[in-house]
Amino acid sequence: MIIDKLIDEIKKKSNPTALGLDTCADYLPGELRVKIKDFKDAGRVIFEFNKSIIDAAADLIPAVKLQAAYYEMYGAHGMEAYEKTREYAKSRGLITIADVKRNDIASTAGAYSRAYLSCSDIGIPAYDFDFMTVNPYLGSDGIEPFLADCKSREKGLFILVKTSNKSSSELQNQILKDGRTVYELVGGFVENWGRDLVGKYGYSSVGAVVGATQKEEARKIRKAYANMFFLIPGYGAQGGSAADLSVSFDERGLGAVVNNSRGIICAHKKFPELKYYEAARKAVVLMKEDLGKERFDSENIF
Amino acid sequence: MIIDKLIDEIKKKSNPTALGLDTCADYLPGELRVKIKDFKDAGRVIFEFNKSIIDAAADLIPAVKLQAAYYEMYGAHGMEAYEKTREYAKSRGLITIADVKRNDIASTAGAYSRAYLSCSDIGIPAYDFDFMTVNPYLGSDGIEPFLADCKSREKGLFILVKTSNKSSSELQNQILKDGRTVYELVGGFVENWGRDLVGKYGYSSVGAVVGATQKEEARKIRKAYANMFFLIPGYGAQGGSAADLSVSFDERGLGAVVNNSRGIICAHKKFPELKYYEAARKAVVLMKEDLGKERFDSENIF
Repeated sequence: MIIDKLIDEIKKKSNPTALGLDTCADYLPGELRVKIKDFKDAGRVIFEFNKSIIDAAADLIPAVKLQAAYYEMYGAHGMEAYEKTREYAKSRGLITIADVKRNDIASTAGAYSRAYLSCSDIGIPAYDFDFMTVNPYLGSDGIEPFLADCKSREKGLFILVKTSNKSSSELQNQILKDGRTVYELVGGFVENWGRDLVGKYGYSSVGAVVGATQKEEARKIRKAYANMFFLIPGYGAQGGSAADLSVSFDERGLGAVVNNSRGIICAHKKFPELKYYEAARKAVVLMKEDLGKERFDSENIF
Repeated sequence: MIIDKLIDEIKKKSNPTALGLDTCADYLPGELRVKIKDFKDAGRVIFEFNKSIIDAAADLIPAVKLQAAYYEMYGAHGMEAYEKTREYAKSRGLITIADVKRNDIASTAGAYSRAYLSCSDIGIPAYDFDFMTVNPYLGSDGIEPFLADCKSREKGLFILVKTSNKSSSELQNQILKDGRTVYELVGGFVENWGRDLVGKYGYSSVGAVVGATQKEEARKIRKAYANMFFLIPGYGAQGGSAADLSVSFDERGLGAVVNNSRGIICAHKKFPELKYYEAARKAVVLMKEDLGKERFDSENIF
């Protein structure tokens, strides 16, 4: 089960942080930004940056999350950098998460699953990630192709349940006739979809995206669905604090992987006296300490 | 307004069909399929196929819809074919729709909008489509970056309201406390988001995806939201008929663009005596006649 491998890495590093590589020209330090004149440069320089950040943080973190939007901005060259970054992170022993939030009808969902978790129809994989993020708006027949690959190829999903943005409540917190909210309904779907993929720690390889900024909702989801592992965006730049996150973890200090993107890759702005990769490492160390204070207040953690 | 340009093309061709280029190796005729050994071949052959289909149909159709999933399967080479196909369709005077169903928090939605409707942060466009499809699960702050580009760059959106797949009812037809369904709520969001973008025909450049298989829902949405233009998937391979679609059109025969992917690009299987592009043209002609019967039963159409 891939969820077990993710949790093993989290335990090994005593750190639930996913390094979010939302890398784009605007976020780069000046000395790298000036090297970019076209998409080819962008692909090359972004990969160079990502590689340095991964090298600086690999011994401290269990996972990387690559936000596809930023790479898609640079066309085919961007997607080349996306795949090279995934491959490099994998070679450094990290768990890889494709943050793509894909969704479609079954035949097309099958093609997305082939793209990010499996193999194209000519037998070659494009982006062979461990996990990918998926949007639940289309219901179960749009999820099943992904589940099939999770089962046959030891992969995992994080499905949007309660997102970190302010407007998420417009749809997700709507109250249904039966009294549940939309996000609780979707939480129930996710639990069902992941039922056959529960690993040795009691968590399923089919998890949920639950924003760091959504403390009350996270508490409810954690309580209702004990097998559901969370991918938590929204720490740092979006305003989520370690205290907000504590409700998402169980008494073992497990239950979630917490993403930080801008807080790490843009740390060179906060610590201008350091090289950009040293600044990123410092941000990772500070985040690990910050999360640890809230998560691990008992002696027998891990 | 881009919606006016789309409707102008529909009127000019007397045809509301979007050519759906869900092109992948498995859908190609045998003589092209055998040419593909790696991703580079796939990109080249798929573009060659798309170009021939566009050439065969360009005088009959107003628009093409490119389903990204199939291209993403072939990595960077696939996305190169995606962009070359868009560019070629544009050069033939067709309206281009990126079927990508993207969705994310505002900063990332901004990057997706840069990728498909606008310009990357280094000032170069990656895929400069006329329209793109978007998923509404995150609410308005995940839509606003797209709306900003629609306004400043004359672009449009089709937002998922009621999708064509069977399981779409699991979430979309849930009934809220106030008696509305989730898809009606989302329809209301879409109407609001598109309010400032209504063109000369009374339709907004911010439209809705409403599946051909969803006759009752389509009728309700059409009645409730007169300014909402529909992108209708699900005709043909998914079981939607022209009769099902009639509720989506207004008394002028306007109101929707109807996508057909497999029914056109795989027509070589149905008409093996024809060359694949002749078969595609034949499928387009037959579809135009089929849709015309239902839509245009008055004399004064167009």
